[in-house]
Amino acid sequence: MNSFGRNFRVSIFGESHGIELGVVIDGVPAGLPLSEADLMVDIERRKSGARGTTPRKESDMPHIVSGLFNEHTTGAPLAILFRNENTISNDYRNLVTHPRPSHSDWVAGQKFHGWNDYRGGGHFSGRLTLGLVAAGAVARKVLAGVEITSRILEIGGCTDPAGFADVVEAALRAHDSVGGIIECRADGVSVGWGEPFFDSVESYISHAIFSVPAVRGIEFGTGFQAARMRGSSHNDPIVDATGRTATNHAGGVVGGISNGNPVVFRVAIKPTASIAAPQQTFNTEHGAVEELRIRGRHDACIALRAPVVIEAATAIALADLKLTASTR
Amino acid sequence: MNSFGRNFRVSIFGESHGIELGVVIDGVPAGLPLSEADLMVDIERRKSGARGTTPRKESDMPHIVSGLFNEHTTGAPLAILFRNENTISNDYRNLVTHPRPSHSDWVAGQKFHGWNDYRGGGHFSGRLTLGLVAAGAVARKVLAGVEITSRILEIGGCTDPAGFADVVEAALRAHDSVGGIIECRADGVSVGWGEPFFDSVESYISHAIFSVPAVRGIEFGTGFQAARMRGSSHNDPIVDATGRTATNHAGGVVGGISNGNPVVFRVAIKPTASIAAPQQTFNTEHGAVEELRIRGRHDACIALRAPVVIEAATAIALADLKLTASTR
Amino acid sequence: MNSFGRNFRVSIFGESHGIELGVVIDGVPAGLPLSEADLMVDIERRKSGARGTTPRKESDMPHIVSGLFNEHTTGAPLAILFRNENTISNDYRNLVTHPRPSHSDWVAGQKFHGWNDYRGGGHFSGRLTLGLVAAGAVARKVLAGVEITSRILEIGGCTDPAGFADVVEAALRAHDSVGGIIECRADGVSVGWGEPFFDSVESYISHAIFSVPAVRGIEFGTGFQAARMRGSSHNDPIVDATGRTATNHAGGVVGGISNGNPVVFRVAIKPTASIAAPQQTFNTEHGAVEELRIRGRHDACIALRAPVVIEAATAIALADLKLTASTR
Amino acid sequence: MNSFGRNFRVSIFGESHGIELGVVIDGVPAGLPLSEADLMVDIERRKSGARGTTPRKESDMPHIVSGLFNEHTTGAPLAILFRNENTISNDYRNLVTHPRPSHSDWVAGQKFHGWNDYRGGGHFSGRLTLGLVAAGAVARKVLAGVEITSRILEIGGCTDPAGFADVVEAALRAHDSVGGIIECRADGVSVGWGEPFFDSVESYISHAIFSVPAVRGIEFGTGFQAARMRGSSHNDPIVDATGRTATNHAGGVVGGISNGNPVVFRVAIKPTASIAAPQQTFNTEHGAVEELRIRGRHDACIALRAPVVIEAATAIALADLKLTASTR
Repeated sequence: MNSFGRNFRVSIFGESHGIELGVVIDGVPAGLPLSEADLMVDIERRKSGARGTTPRKESDMPHIVSGLFNEHTTGAPLAILFRNENTISNDYRNLVTHPRPSHSDWVAGQKFHGWNDYRGGGHFSGRLTLGLVAAGAVARKVLAGVEITSRILEIGGCTDPAGFADVVEAALRAHDSVGGIIECRADGVSVGWGEPFFDSVESYISHAIFSVPAVRGIEFGTGFQAARMRGSSHNDPIVDATGRTATNHAGGVVGGISNGNPVVFRVAIKPTASIAAPQQTFNTEHGAVEELRIRGRHDACIALRAPVVIEAATAIALADLKLTASTR
Repeated sequence: MNSFGRNFRVSIFGESHGIELGVVIDGVPAGLPLSEADLMVDIERRKSGARGTTPRKESDMPHIVSGLFNEHTTGAPLAILFRNENTISNDYRNLVTHPRPSHSDWVAGQKFHGWNDYRGGGHFSGRLTLGLVAAGAVARKVLAGVEITSRILEIGGCTDPAGFADVVEAALRAHDSVGGIIECRADGVSVGWGEPFFDSVESYISHAIFSVPAVRGIEFGTGFQAARMRGSSHNDPIVDATGRTATNHAGGVVGGISNGNPVVFRVAIKPTASIAAPQQTFNTEHGAVEELRIRGRHDACIALRAPVVIEAATAIALADLKLTASTR
Repeated sequence: MNSFGRNFRVSIFGESHGIELGVVIDGVPAGLPLSEADLMVDIERRKSGARGTTPRKESDMPHIVSGLFNEHTTGAPLAILFRNENTISNDYRNLVTHPRPSHSDWVAGQKFHGWNDYRGGGHFSGRLTLGLVAAGAVARKVLAGVEITSRILEIGGCTDPAGFADVVEAALRAHDSVGGIIECRADGVSVGWGEPFFDSVESYISHAIFSVPAVRGIEFGTGFQAARMRGSSHNDPIVDATGRTATNHAGGVVGGISNGNPVVFRVAIKPTASIAAPQQTFNTEHGAVEELRIRGRHDACIALRAPVVIEAATAIALADLKLTASTR
Repeated sequence: MNSFGRNFRVSIFGESHGIELGVVIDGVPAGLPLSEADLMVDIERRKSGARGTTPRKESDMPHIVSGLFNEHTTGAPLAILFRNENTISNDYRNLVTHPRPSHSDWVAGQKFHGWNDYRGGGHFSGRLTLGLVAAGAVARKVLAGVEITSRILEIGGCTDPAGFADVVEAALRAHDSVGGIIECRADGVSVGWGEPFFDSVESYISHAIFSVPAVRGIEFGTGFQAARMRGSSHNDPIVDATGRTATNHAGGVVGGISNGNPVVFRVAIKPTASIAAPQQTFNTEHGAVEELRIRGRHDACIALRAPVVIEAATAIALADLKLTASTR
């Protein structure tokens, strides 16, 4: 449900407009140096600020309230809390009867029989990724020697980073939103992570990545393009005893197991569902389709803030696979 | 590891050239009508036979040895066994020192410290999907009212089904292989399946799908194309009280939860790694790169046989999400 | 590790002298009325106060920071936090090198390579049961119609409740401690909870109960006495169509499955390990056995405070079994 | 449900009178020497034969059909199958309407809505412990250096082993049954196994032990007697740097973590529910209490065959705790 992992186990809780949100991380090896400042590096990267990101400003100060002693992890669960400060809840009242298109409003109400906290998307809000980023920062500590990085390949179909700002600006002027594509890679992954059949590296990473709101697709190595290649050009010949391959079309994973080459994958992020332009939706009170105007503070391009979240989800999946591999 | 699911739990075992392979399925509700003949429908679809599929022929007769009584499920675990009959193991001896490119040979040897059963890929063989297909057929019974279908969209880059055979034939003549793209859809999924955050419908389905050998990517709804759309055109307006949307760019999943529209996704299958043409690989005995010629019986286009396997993985994921949703 | 349950999932975190401790509860059905006041009923029962319980006083105010909206559960995870206020940590410094007999000090240091928070037993402290009690109160809401109660059968070998206070007083005067036996029962459990083989009702309850510090044994129904009875007198004849039995030697569980009669079991609580009288222990710095005098504030008879904790662990186990049974 | 363990994962399937029963074991480290003959050592110990055990004779030949290659484990799941041969199913037909007292007949019918395989207790039969014993034998291989042994302390209240046969004989003559108490110990357990809070050594072992049919209680170390001791006499002083204690009242577990001393616990086994003497039960067809005479072949004292099963459950629990501890 809201937890993930076998030996490195992450449990997320909180809502967009609740009192506190956070994460509990179980299975963290003892003796890792850790501080709240360490977490802030990734948390800062997640913050809004660029043109096209939400004007909601939060301090996002993490509070590590357990599992830390003498500035090192103790082996007991880490609980990391964040206070919600800048909430304007009356923005959201009318959305109960006017579910926003392509948002969780309607399904959440159905699944939880009307009891869900609908304010700002409640538990479905992208704000929950704050806990994910904190857990990812801890996972990076577990993954000493592995470097996880990412970059934006496309924004709104534009592949030139110099043009990203213009694409977002144009969308904003049109009261609209845009999506993007992010590439993530993990260098330094050892050979042999991933479990046969169900817990392949791709299964595990994709499970974590699709928990990030707005993700619509994932492809490893050559991905969808692989379907258009022949085996003779797609195959990666092994060139030395460490398993290095001449090419890396596999994206570092063969048979579900890491092969020592960089793990590389791409993620598609949809355009933000909340747009300022008027839309049609079904008014559940009136029983008719009506116009909806979304107020509130939103990101016109959530893909701009997604890279660190994608890295965090990846780190969480890899940290667990690493610990599990150590039992073999 | 080799099991998947919370309340509908599938455990896979076996090897390409072992004695028996199969699957244990736990959490199956009691009282579902089931017979070995029911399983054969999907098992037949998985069989080879078309030009471009392996000449290895197996009866693939399923034996349900527990969990069935009076032709109905009992609520106890179903164990379904298959005997390996048509194995020619001396095909594989030289592959220990000559790992096939883009195959699990080398990583399996590393992960399991040389103890893995390397014959025919051992536990990593596509033959294991036989158990998956059997479990999928059981999952379909759990999913009464849901219809899961799939179709091949592309083979080797060709999008015209009339041309698929030619594409495969050309690859065969070139001692090569081709991949493909499969679209899968589930009609009749109720509103409210999927769990918040980590166990979204996409997380769960992708976890299962990436356990299928040769899968390189997955995208839901508009998928990667969503990253190039604006929110105003991507959003799916709700048009009635059942949650039906005018468009289904979301592929039936919003906020990780099914919204009652068809669940639709596409899967990229890479070209078969085993090709007849000579390749380079690292000879682990000689410590040098050498030419490799793969013998044995292989599929030139595994994508031709993949649709029923993709459907099975989908059914397994959805059956579990359905049972879990019933606890809410 | 620090979490328990399949569909009703409880994750505990915190330390005796940390900043905050608490619990995250996932899988809680939406729409249950809940308030912090509801939790206080059981929390008050857990508090010290009686002669023979620790003089450490804490407000133990629960803060429900997520998963609650309009005074009802939302279906999202409940996070319940408690602040540690009354901590005197310099009490514990010398215990690093002088591990207290029958305490977790030494094993915790070994398991966590010296990085554990040793203050007041850290994560191993009985204080963690505060989170358990809060989760138990939520579980009781899930278990509408089930009443879980308990009573102290013995304290220090005395079976007369009127004499319990004297037994504890005598131990206190001797700078010593005493244990006790608690009987717990759950009335109103439906027929059919518990899963075959590994997740029997007894397996599940005992798993939860042995997570409570100081528990040394558990027996269901006639328990150890059953081993001395003959089948003819031990068997419980069914007397009506509801499954009611003439006797309840089984303690409400047959074949691992609840049979509709009251679930009854007894739990042995050892005497508190921390006693004021001088003891011998191994000084890990000096490498020699030395005398140890334990300071700090402790319960001379933790069994006095255990009933509500035992009930909570029981409620957690039963709530999960109930939700899992609903998938069958 | 029918599986247990995090990193060493055991899944049981089968019925008393089904075609085959068995076990799938996942997470087995590669390279352990293993053969079917290895399994037979424990399987032989489980067999009936002594006076007071069932006259049903089975070869109980294990078939390891996957996960084994070159006489060593491969790291892939082990599937171990047993064929049911000596079944006389017409013995059981009338038990559908005449549920045997203290047997699973009635609850199984209720839980599974009448679809359960009732022959010989079906999935609830003690015959399922055959798979447990096989898994235990594998677990012992994982636990190199740990020796798990057990002995019968009591049969029918008699504590003199020389008198056990007489006690059983007397019960048989009276068409009755008797229970017993078994002590199990594990020597050589390393310091530091067991996870804080929910997955204590006691929680884990008791979870596994209560999955064995007929178990009614478990106590570690001094167990229930601890409740009658004072802390000063119950505490185990540490006497050297290896953590050895002068006494072992704790039974080798402190704070839920193994402390390097022998793990010792006792298990109560109830008298066999199936007795030859006439009993009363509720006839579900007639809606009235009637006399029942149980035919079929049963053990008058299942405790005689239980020691190896108790050892197996213990080995399974410890093997998993060992592998999990290696991730810390």
